[in-house]
Parts: sequence; C-alpha cells; structure tokens
Amino acid sequence: MGMIGGGIGAFIGDAHRRASRICNDYELVGGVFDPDFERNKKFAASEGIDPKRCYETVDALIKGEKALPPERRIEVVAIVTPNAFHYPFAKSLLNAGFHLVCEKPMTMTVDEALDLEKSVAEKKLTFALTHTYTGYPMVRQMREIISKGLLGTIQRIDAQYYQGWINSIIHGTESRITGVWRLDPKQAGVSSCMGDIGVHAFNLIEYTTGLEVKEILSDLSSVKDDVKLDLDGTVMLRFGGYLKGVIRASQVCGGEENGITIAVYGSKASLKWAQENPNYLYMLSDSEPTRVFKPAHGYNGKLAETGHTMPAGHPEGIYEALANIYRGAARSIRGEAYDKAEFPTVHDGVRGMKFIHAVVESNRMGNIWMKI
Amino acid sequence: MGMIGGGIGAFIGDAHRRASRICNDYELVGGVFDPDFERNKKFAASEGIDPKRCYETVDALIKGEKALPPERRIEVVAIVTPNAFHYPFAKSLLNAGFHLVCEKPMTMTVDEALDLEKSVAEKKLTFALTHTYTGYPMVRQMREIISKGLLGTIQRIDAQYYQGWINSIIHGTESRITGVWRLDPKQAGVSSCMGDIGVHAFNLIEYTTGLEVKEILSDLSSVKDDVKLDLDGTVMLRFGGYLKGVIRASQVCGGEENGITIAVYGSKASLKWAQENPNYLYMLSDSEPTRVFKPAHGYNGKLAETGHTMPAGHPEGIYEALANIYRGAARSIRGEAYDKAEFPTVHDGVRGMKFIHAVVESNRMGNIWMKI
Amino acid sequence: MGMIGGGIGAFIGDAHRRASRICNDYELVGGVFDPDFERNKKFAASEGIDPKRCYETVDALIKGEKALPPERRIEVVAIVTPNAFHYPFAKSLLNAGFHLVCEKPMTMTVDEALDLEKSVAEKKLTFALTHTYTGYPMVRQMREIISKGLLGTIQRIDAQYYQGWINSIIHGTESRITGVWRLDPKQAGVSSCMGDIGVHAFNLIEYTTGLEVKEILSDLSSVKDDVKLDLDGTVMLRFGGYLKGVIRASQVCGGEENGITIAVYGSKASLKWAQENPNYLYMLSDSEPTRVFKPAHGYNGKLAETGHTMPAGHPEGIYEALANIYRGAARSIRGEAYDKAEFPTVHDGVRGMKFIHAVVESNRMGNIWMKI
Amino acid sequence: MGMIGGGIGAFIGDAHRRASRICNDYELVGGVFDPDFERNKKFAASEGIDPKRCYETVDALIKGEKALPPERRIEVVAIVTPNAFHYPFAKSLLNAGFHLVCEKPMTMTVDEALDLEKSVAEKKLTFALTHTYTGYPMVRQMREIISKGLLGTIQRIDAQYYQGWINSIIHGTESRITGVWRLDPKQAGVSSCMGDIGVHAFNLIEYTTGLEVKEILSDLSSVKDDVKLDLDGTVMLRFGGYLKGVIRASQVCGGEENGITIAVYGSKASLKWAQENPNYLYMLSDSEPTRVFKPAHGYNGKLAETGHTMPAGHPEGIYEALANIYRGAARSIRGEAYDKAEFPTVHDGVRGMKFIHAVVESNRMGNIWMKI
Repeated sequence: MGMIGGGIGAFIGDAHRRASRICNDYELVGGVFDPDFERNKKFAASEGIDPKRCYETVDALIKGEKALPPERRIEVVAIVTPNAFHYPFAKSLLNAGFHLVCEKPMTMTVDEALDLEKSVAEKKLTFALTHTYTGYPMVRQMREIISKGLLGTIQRIDAQYYQGWINSIIHGTESRITGVWRLDPKQAGVSSCMGDIGVHAFNLIEYTTGLEVKEILSDLSSVKDDVKLDLDGTVMLRFGGYLKGVIRASQVCGGEENGITIAVYGSKASLKWAQENPNYLYMLSDSEPTRVFKPAHGYNGKLAETGHTMPAGHPEGIYEALANIYRGAARSIRGEAYDKAEFPTVHDGVRGMKFIHAVVESNRMGNIWMKI
Repeated sequence: MGMIGGGIGAFIGDAHRRASRICNDYELVGGVFDPDFERNKKFAASEGIDPKRCYETVDALIKGEKALPPERRIEVVAIVTPNAFHYPFAKSLLNAGFHLVCEKPMTMTVDEALDLEKSVAEKKLTFALTHTYTGYPMVRQMREIISKGLLGTIQRIDAQYYQGWINSIIHGTESRITGVWRLDPKQAGVSSCMGDIGVHAFNLIEYTTGLEVKEILSDLSSVKDDVKLDLDGTVMLRFGGYLKGVIRASQVCGGEENGITIAVYGSKASLKWAQENPNYLYMLSDSEPTRVFKPAHGYNGKLAETGHTMPAGHPEGIYEALANIYRGAARSIRGEAYDKAEFPTVHDGVRGMKFIHAVVESNRMGNIWMKI
Repeated sequence: MGMIGGGIGAFIGDAHRRASRICNDYELVGGVFDPDFERNKKFAASEGIDPKRCYETVDALIKGEKALPPERRIEVVAIVTPNAFHYPFAKSLLNAGFHLVCEKPMTMTVDEALDLEKSVAEKKLTFALTHTYTGYPMVRQMREIISKGLLGTIQRIDAQYYQGWINSIIHGTESRITGVWRLDPKQAGVSSCMGDIGVHAFNLIEYTTGLEVKEILSDLSSVKDDVKLDLDGTVMLRFGGYLKGVIRASQVCGGEENGITIAVYGSKASLKWAQENPNYLYMLSDSEPTRVFKPAHGYNGKLAETGHTMPAGHPEGIYEALANIYRGAARSIRGEAYDKAEFPTVHDGVRGMKFIHAVVESNRMGNIWMKI
Repeated sequence: MGMIGGGIGAFIGDAHRRASRICNDYELVGGVFDPDFERNKKFAASEGIDPKRCYETVDALIKGEKALPPERRIEVVAIVTPNAFHYPFAKSLLNAGFHLVCEKPMTMTVDEALDLEKSVAEKKLTFALTHTYTGYPMVRQMREIISKGLLGTIQRIDAQYYQGWINSIIHGTESRITGVWRLDPKQAGVSSCMGDIGVHAFNLIEYTTGLEVKEILSDLSSVKDDVKLDLDGTVMLRFGGYLKGVIRASQVCGGEENGITIAVYGSKASLKWAQENPNYLYMLSDSEPTRVFKPAHGYNGKLAETGHTMPAGHPEGIYEALANIYRGAARSIRGEAYDKAEFPTVHDGVRGMKFIHAVVESNRMGNIWMKI
C-alpha cells in the first residue's frame, strides 16, 4: 500500500494506517505524505518507509513504482488529502493501474465523480470510498435486517450528524490546523458541513436501507458573516411514494462530538443506531419489548460478524470499522469472494457528490426540491 | 374544579384528575364527563361526584353552578374533550367567569384562538393550557439556564416528537377507541400529527428558549391513501438572523412511545433533554465534561424545584409534571405570586394554532416559507 | 385515612399523602402530625384538616375516632414517624381495630415485629408496609417473569442500595434536620444504613424472586469515629443449594442519589432493574438480543399494568409506585379481590427485622454466618 | 516480537497481534503458536512468518533466536498460552534475556510469581502483564483524578466482573473449545472465575486508586456438582482504616457479556466506569451535576491522551486499550521515558496471584479474613 497525504498531524491518515494494520492485509511501503518534501521525508522516516519510496509527487510515485518489479510494486494507494486533490490524484492513479482507497467527499464536482466511476469500470480496479461508519458491525446488521424485510413498509427515515468542533474556530477561542482547509471553498469544495459530514448521513441511509433518495430540499446556514460555506443545515428527503425523511447536520452544535445517528421506522419494526455507542443496535416494535443487538453473537448475520474474533462485550471502535472496509477492499483486490456491502464504492461517491451539489443548489435557489 | 370530557376510558382526563389531586389545590366536584348522559352519570358516580353536579351539557353546568353560592361554586373548569369542542366550551365558560385549564391544541382555527385570548384578557381570568412537558423540573431548569445566557449565542434548535401508536390503527392490527377522533378532521382539526404532537415540540422550543419562531417550511405525509390528515412531517424553522432549526414529528415511527426531545445548541454550551428520561438534563460544551442536571438539587433554580419534596434520585413522572402546571394555575387563580413560566397560557395557545395552520398551509402550497 | 407523623418538613409523609391522593381511594381526615402540638395544629390547618381531628397523641386519636359513628371514622392510619415509634403506635392502633399503612423498618426489634404479625393475624386487619419500590410496574413485571420460571435456575442475585446524602452531615458541610434521627440508635434502632436502605434491597430480592434468604454474613463500616451506627456495608447471601448473592448498601457513596438496583441471573435468562430509571426492565440472555420491557404494554402481566392509564412512554415515578401500594391496601381493606403482591405485609416486616438484626449481629461477632 | 500460544482459534492471541500492529512498535517474526507442530506451522504460514522461525518448542525458539545476529533477533515475546504454561515459559525466556508481554493470571502459584518478579529485577528486563482494561483512556483518567486527591477521602470501592459464557458449557447447550481449559485445575490453576476475571477487578482497583487491598473474605460457588472450580463469588475487601469494598465476579450471569465495572466513592466526589461503554467516565458529587469525561479532550491528563489521534467522539475499543499497553512496554524496552502507569508489571502479577490464592483459601477455610 501507498498513501497520498496523511503526514505529520493528519489524524485521518493515521486512522487509515492503523486500520490497514488491524486488518493485516496491507503493508505501507511508500507514499507522498506531505506537499512539503522535507516534512514528507521526515514523516516517512518516522514510519520506517524506505526513503526511495517517499516520493515528491504523485507522478513521481507512479513512475517510481512502475519501475519496480510487479511483486514489489505498490498495489493499492490510499488518498487522504484535502478534498480538492482527491480527483486529480485518483484519476492519475487509476490510469496507472493502482487500486484505490479514497476519503470522502470523493471529488469536487459531480462530473469528476462520474468520470472516476467510468475509469474504475474501464480499468476493472477496486475503488473503496471510506464512508467509515458502514464498517461498524451493527450498521451492517442494520442493513441485513432491513434487507430481509423485517421492518415492513419503511415509513420514515431520520439521520443526524452533529459536531461542534468548528465553534472553536469561528468564535476564535482556538485555532486548529485541521480546521482551516475545510472552510476554504478551493480546498473543501462547495460545502463544509454537508460535504464533510452531511454526506456521511446520506450514505448511511442509502447503505442501510438499499433505497435511493429521489429528491431533496435544503435550508443551510453559514452561522456567521465571514464564513463562506454552510456550517449547519436541514435537508428534507423524498424517496418516492409516501416515504419521506430528513438529514440534520451541523458543525456548530457545541459539545456534540461526532454525533452521527440513524433511525429507520417501519410499519412492523424500527431500527436505531448511534455512532458514539456503536455496539448497540435497537430494534423497536409497537407490540414487543425493544431488542438490543450487539456484536459477536450468533443472532447476527455474517456481514456483521466478519471482522472480529473477540467474544461479545469487548467493544470495537472506529479503527475496527475502518479496518473492516480495508479488509473488504483487500478481498476485492485479491479477487476473492466478498459481499458488495463490505466497502462503499465509486458509485457511492457519485451519489454523495450528487447529494452535496443538490443540497447546495436547493439552498441557493430558495429552498426548492432538487432531484438527485 | 369541574371537568368537561374525560369520562370512561379517556386517559387524558384521568391524568388531569390525578395531577389536580397531586398538587392538592383542587377538588373535583362536578362536570360533563361524557356526551352520553348515561355514561356521564355512571362515570360521575364512580368518582363520587354529587349526582346533581353531573350536568348533561356545558350550559347546564354553567347555569347550575351559577345558582350555587360563590363559596361552593366551581371556580375552575378543565376542558379535556376532543379538539373541536375546546373553543365553544372555553368561550362559554370564560364568558360565565370560570377560570380554565384546557388541553391543546387550544382551538380549531387561529381566529378562535385570538378570540379566546381576547376573552381571557377582558375577563381577567386564568387560562392554563396543558403543554404538560413544560411542567417537568428539568425543562424548567433548561429555561432558566438559557434565560441566564449560559449557552452564548444560540446556533441551532432541534426538537423531535415521535410516536408509533397510529400504526396499529392505520395498518389494522388493532382498533383503539382513543385513536379514532384524532384522524377525523371534524373533531381533530386540520392536522393530526402536527396538531396533536408537533405543536408540543413547537411549544417546548418557545418555552425553553424564550424565542419566537418567525417562519416555517414544512413537508408532511399522510402515509397511506385513505388517511386524510398528516401523520408525519418535518418542519424547518427560522428565528431571524442566522438561527435555524427543525421540528420532526411523526405518529408512524413504529416502536417509539412518546419520544419528545429538544436540543438547543449555543456558541458556549448546549442543552439536551428527552421526555422519556425526564429527570436528566445534559449540558454539553466543547471544552468541559458534559454535565448532567437532575431534580432536587441546590444547583437548580427555584422554578425547577417548586414541585417536589423528595430528595434527589426519587424519579418524578408525567403526572407530577402536569401537577406542577395545575399548581401554578392555582396560584394564579388565588391571586398569589407566581412565575409566569409555571403554566402555559392562552397566548401559547395562539402561537400553537398559528404554528399548526402555517405548517399545514406550507405543505399544501408546495413547501414554501410561511410566517407565524 | 389518618396519619401519625409526617408534619412540617417531613418528606416521606408528603409522599404518602400524595400517593393516597393519586390512587384516589383515601381521604386524609385526621392525625397526629407532629409531637409538638403547635406545629401539629399548624400543619393540620395547612392541609385543611378539621381541627377537632388534629389530635395531640395517638391515644387521643384512637379515643376521638372511636367516638365517631363508624361511617365517619378513620379506617386506616399511615404511620410515618421515626422508626422507634412504629411499634408502639402500630400496636395501639391495631388493638383499636385500625388498618395500617406503615413505613419501614417496621419495628426496632424482631420480637416487636413478630408481635405485630400476631396482632394483624388475630385482628384480621390490613397491614401494608411501604417497601415502595415493590410498587413500580417493572418490579412487578420482574416478579411475574421470575414466577413463570423464565429465568431457568437462578444462579446469582445482586442488589445494591447506594446513597450519598449522609456525607454532608458527617463531614459537616451541611446540617439537614431529616438526617439527625437516623444516626441516633434510640430513634433509628440498631442500624442506619442496613435498617434504612439495606432492608429495601433485601425486600426487593425476596419480593421479585419469591425466594427466602437463608443465611447472611456481613461486614459493616461506620466510616468515622464519632458515628455510632453503620453507614456502609456488604452482606453476603445464601439461599440454599448453590445459590448465593450479595447486598451492597451505603449512605456515603458521594453523588449517588437513590441508587437501588437489582439483578437476578438465571441459567436461561436474567433480569436487571434500577430505581432511578424505573420504567426500564432489561431481560438478558446468552443467545438472544437483550429485551427492554416498559410499562403500558400488552406484553406485561396484569400486576404490572394495574396502576396506570396513560399510554407507553409517559414516565411514572416514585409517587405512582407508592400509590400502587396504597391502591392494593385499599382493595384489601374494602374486602375486594387483590393480588397478594400488590403490597408488602407485616410478614415482610418480620423478614426485614430479622435481616437487619442478623446483619448487625454478624458484623459484631466478627463476620460470621447468621441464619434468618 | 515472538509469540508463544495464540494459534488457530485462539482469540486472545489474535487480540495481542492486532494490538501490537495498532501501536506499530512491533513486528511479529516468529513463535510457538501451537503445541501441535503441524497446526503451529499452518498458523505461522497464514501469518506470513518465516518457516524457520516457527519453532517446535520454547527452548527451540530461544536457541534459534540466540543464534541470530542481535539486530534480527526477537526482542520481546508475548505469552498467550493457557495459565499453567505462563511460568515455565516466562522463566526460560527471562533467563535467556527476552523482554516479555504476558497474559494474566501470571502464574499458578504465589511462589512462581515471586520468582518471576525476582528474575525480572535481576535481569532488568521489561515485563508487561496484560491487564488490558488499564489501557483504556478513561481508566487512566480515573487514576489521574484519584491521584490528584479530587475524591477526598475514599469511603467505598465496588468492582464487578460479570460474564455469562460458561452457562452454555456447564448447561450443555454449547461446547466451546476456548472454555475447556479454564475449568481444568491442571491448566487453569486453583480458580476459574476469580483467576480469570476476578483478578482483573482486583487489579483495576489497585491500578486506579493506588491503594493496596490488605485483607479479603470470600464466598465462592461452583454452581454445579460436577464443576471443580469456582464460577461465581463475592469478595469483601479491607484497605485499612474505615475503608472497605467488594469485588463481585461470576461466569454464570446469563446474558452478561464482559461486565467489568468499577466505582470509587469519596467524601468529595466519586468515579464510575464500565468497560462495555469504555469512553465514558462519570464523576459524581453531592452538590454538583454529574460530569461525564470522554477521551480526546484537553481536560484529560496526558496519560489518558497518549494513545489516540482522532478527535473526540470517535470511539476506541478493547484493541486500542491493549495497544496502549503494548506502546508503553515498547517505550520501556527501548529505554525511553514512560509513565509507570502505562503498563502493568510483574509486581501486579504478584499481587494478583496473592489475591487469587487468598480468595480460594478464605472460601476453603469457611469464609475467614485472609491477608494479602
């Protein structure tokens, strides 16, 4: 495995490396960890990377690795840069025949997303988009329960993603390096809140239910005069028929840490899950006691049980969720059998970009319905 | 105290009677408990009411009580009928000089609501609207904390009211008498979900924050072809400035019992409360551990502590919340000093009717912004 | 109903009066609310009691009420005095033919308890001991589930009662009137912690399981040099066969409010309940998702559902639990059919006194096993 | 790193390997994974281990590794075998100069434990005992808060470790390979429940409080006739002065998964933590709202924050806790500065063996106090 981005101080790159080690199907052997070559080299050294494989640019990496014999060459590259670089780097790497693990949002525009989708199809490569929350066992169990029809007719869907960390930046009580690029349209794209976190909630809905959102209507807020992107918003959802729903996302909910939740309500039963307590899945019904599903039990489906060996009651966390996605991608790269729900794909990336752009456009046009 | 409605099988009437006994400022001495006079009399007998004061109609009650000497006469009447009867009975009783405790939604139309507000002002009577959730100690503490400015600038407000009980009716698995009138526009008014429960969420927002919702945009669903009223919906809120919020309400969230929650997010701190665990109020901040407020502590304000004598850790429930409202109304009726936050008034009823009608209208007009 | 004790500032008397009003089978018409006659009269006036029925002593109450015609006479008396007065007042009142509702611990000695049991049997009167926690719907449901054998063989029982309120007294940060008598052996008896709260845990075990504790071994602590009674302790339990258990109780667990919990573990399933969240009963099994029982559902037994009319999700609290006990006692007094689990009896009082004395004796003798 | 035990089907060996990869200071290069050499080789191959370094015995490993140049040689060995093998293997490996990571309980007898302690001291090697729960950030924060004296005088300590997994074995509903050796005194030692899990609770008490348990009194149960070791028990604790406490442990609490909890109650404040929700630490006080500490906040001490880079709200689990211990051991092995609380040592192993043997002896002698 190689990595683009994720150098000194980048928490998401660290998470990717840990996850790749947990699942034990990868070895980090090279990369471009930082646009600053000195910092890049310093970081590579700290990770024990062969200095020859610490490249100055993505092009250099492609060239360098191509020059190696296939059995020593990087097979898969993880892209964990700011959003604006996802597309050009992914495009180059796909063209050069590398499998990819890519952070979300996948691109800056819908066209870029569609273009990547085309490249992946043409090159027959594996492309795993790290909507990390789909790696949690209980999210996977949720998908399984719904796919079996145990909820009856789905009647309402409600997802939330509330954080508060941007408060310290916009209100000036703290200055965090990781926060800066997300508020810059050139690096982050058309949206902050919806692009960074709202899209996770959107993905979680489509992942767990297997349904597609058909139309959205949004109302966004930048919260302060000097902020150029949305930091907060509500998105109404329509799925066709009577089914409606809502996504609520915000980066200014002071004290919320990483509050992504999903509830899917059906005519027979309902399911609720919250990321901060990821090992609990609640199944509600009008006539039976609520049932609480947990990992490492025989009552769960295979997809939920694929990633752990510890008995029940030994909590798994975010790193294990990401490792489950890495594991699925590894199976795909090796040509082994795998469940398509084991990792989000470039198509999820296309859906996400359509969502982000529709949400921004709906808000800009005065809160009207937009198809996605 | 007298009572209109609340006869055999009516759970909300029973709750009012219990609450009035808990606070111990009332004695139920007469009423019109059921439109069917035989059932009315039967019920009155079961409550030990003097048969002479079990009246056939509200007019008869007014006439009968007026004929009694003032010290024996009913002072205050609780109206717990289906929605359509609130206005005419309230109007008559106000005109006759009775104080009122009235269930919500207060009337069928905004004009009726404004008319009642006028009557209350003219007659200088006490009118308590039973938005019961405002009687919980931790809701009152929430109001107090916000009023002191401890949250900084409020940046987002999110309230939910999810129930699932209508599933059993619309999907035919059960037929509950209490459910019928709520789906009939003639008895329930223009809305089921928003009129019955969404308005509670709306009231809770205005009660706890002291802010007024300025504009709403709604998307509602009737869930099934043969249902005439909304059973589910999302309402976007604007408060002026950058502040936005959302109300989510549904009666088809299978397995949800009485899931009313509120979260108010500020630049300095935030507050979260959920009705099903009413004795816990969570105060979040980005830099401090979350703090959990509970009743019966010296750190709470006077308003939160007015209604109980048990030490901390002895849970209070819905009956005590309603009793707190009854207690406040009693203080008002007796001309004692009281905090205006001790009970919702006819003005809250006007606000609620404006909300309900705006929500229905926004949805009907194609999801546009409506002022309230 | 009459009342002995419970005057100005006494929270437990207030709770009894509220409970009696909630269940609506009682009317408070007289009593001896305070040993100080002035305070007694002042309190009676505040409750609207006929001054003639505010008596100076229990004997005066007996004499005065006996002089009234039977239909106007007090039928049942609630004893809510400090512990030392329970026995003499109960004895006199039983001899005079009054039904009783009595606070726990029932007496000061086991002999007194046995004597009361004998009196109740001879006089064929109703004697309800207010182990209030047995009035919670989910505690009753717990009893029902266990009585049906759904747990298989019971393998472990663990009950806790942790409070922290005595800290403020023994560490001098606060002086609370209600705290004083509980630390005085003359008024409280041989034990503070075990007599006041440990006995509740003991009762809850025997109530929910229907089992009798056969032997106990205790280790107690007075926490500070100048305290004469236990404030903290652990009690090992044996039930015969392989079944063992533990009661943990303390009044110095700083920050604990009223932390009484019970867990009963069986070979097939287990049950857990905690008083501070009384409307949740957890049923665990090794092979199925945990199930969460709540009140107001058709899946509960009749005993759990007898006391409320509100739909699910409307929380009940401690006052409703106590009201459920009052309701059962009323049924017994009126000679109606009732479930013997509707209220704890004088026999539970005998068991409790045996427990308290065995615990104190085991500790005094150097932590040896004592039969009870 | 080398490993002894942990071959096919062994979940704890898998956990150790994951943890070593997460912290990224180790590379697994050899071992004796299974006493059956064929299974051993098969497993080594699946992990990509050089076949030459998959040894048939521990002696062969020592000999083989010693023959390698120091820079290629295994530095540290993880022992994850059944209990009986811990001592002989640890002894040999220490004598040969290898650092060790060892599973608990450390040995079969107290003498063995003391002997290992002596060896570690003489050889000046690093010995990390994997009391994994001490690796959780909030357990470390608990230690820090207590060490600062913020609880005042500690007045009660209560730890629990409840599991239910042995039910399926002793009641014959399932036969799990991992379960067999723990019930065999030759492989597991003198205790099942207290040796496997009770000792974790004991360690957690001494780790978080810095106090030593002085005396214990236990009552154990084997639950069924044909079981030779304890599966359930209660242990009273004395710490000197007025401070007492309790450990409750059981393997027959049906439906409990891995229920280790600790509560430390002080005169000023108290702390509660539960392993199944490891990212929440509750600080209670009588006069302030409960405070909830979570990882990744500036209010935590350095020890709690050393192991993660993700922002707050990204849950960590058991693998990260174990990785934190591995990280501390790596620092020690490399001679870097580290906090002595970063990993449990051979001395904790001695304490644990004294605890286990005292508990078994107290029970055998008829529940008497034993010094430890």
